[in-house]
Amino acid sequence: MSTRYEIRLAGSGGQGLILAGIILAEAAGIYDGKFVCQTQSYGPEARGGASKTEVVISDEEIDYPKAIQPDVLLAMNQKSLDAYIGGLKPEGLLIVDATLVPEVPLDRFVALPFTEIARELGREMVANIVALGALAALSRAVTPESLGKAVLARVPKGTEELNHKALAAGLAAARP
Amino acid sequence: MSTRYEIRLAGSGGQGLILAGIILAEAAGIYDGKFVCQTQSYGPEARGGASKTEVVISDEEIDYPKAIQPDVLLAMNQKSLDAYIGGLKPEGLLIVDATLVPEVPLDRFVALPFTEIARELGREMVANIVALGALAALSRAVTPESLGKAVLARVPKGTEELNHKALAAGLAAARP
Repeated sequence: MSTRYEIRLAGSGGQGLILAGIILAEAAGIYDGKFVCQTQSYGPEARGGASKTEVVISDEEIDYPKAIQPDVLLAMNQKSLDAYIGGLKPEGLLIVDATLVPEVPLDRFVALPFTEIARELGREMVANIVALGALAALSRAVTPESLGKAVLARVPKGTEELNHKALAAGLAAARP
Repeated sequence: MSTRYEIRLAGSGGQGLILAGIILAEAAGIYDGKFVCQTQSYGPEARGGASKTEVVISDEEIDYPKAIQPDVLLAMNQKSLDAYIGGLKPEGLLIVDATLVPEVPLDRFVALPFTEIARELGREMVANIVALGALAALSRAVTPESLGKAVLARVPKGTEELNHKALAAGLAAARP
């Protein structure tokens, strides 16, 4: 049975989704020792408000590096949810930022207020890290320990404590 | 005739190649209006000193997002050159950082001292941006104008002037 596991992270350009994808990929690839491919694609839609990055994780070498039918979709705003929900596995996990996504077209999903939690921590820009914490708690993509190491290795110097708190807040929000 | 154009950027973990790949992809995808895929892969080698990122640029939608036979390889150290030179097109463009790559197994390549140029600008860490400037001058991957916009949009606040100088130095080094 295939161990291939596909994650799509979607949001607007300024929400730090590419960095979130790099952190998730390095957590799984470098610290959990899996095979990982991480992809960004740009096309005519690149100037709009929806962008995505994809991370494919496997115990075996990865042939096709893009998500074919994501196991997980994290959508950080309404536009990116609408643009990228297509293809999500029927039993897939949909996680949305409740602060910025008012309308969800499925009846099975997890909504958590990532942006609101980040604001309470003092910096809205860490909503991406809060969301990664929740994703780790809710999926089998990555271990929280590896994710913590990858976050600290990638975030700007001087923001380590803030990002550590953001990750912990995301884990806690998803495991009430 | 296919317009597919494949670029592989390789170096050690700390040399900023992923950021260089993101900048190159956004320059071509957002500012030049091309279809672009940008990929990082991690496997058992991820803990070693060689990492790579790939950017595929096309006028048409991209089916397979990884480099099959790169048109360009930029190698920022010896280990990554040795690890990732395989597959470079016979007529492909090889660019190496002369500061850190003493041995090149081909007889047709461009060597420029990216790290030394970056040191002269005061910050070794901008060697990746110097190299991108040279890559833009030597290849048809991206226009220098779009690359300049993408650099300014992605580098840390407060480093815009340094990075602008780094890009200009790379362009100038490759167009003496």
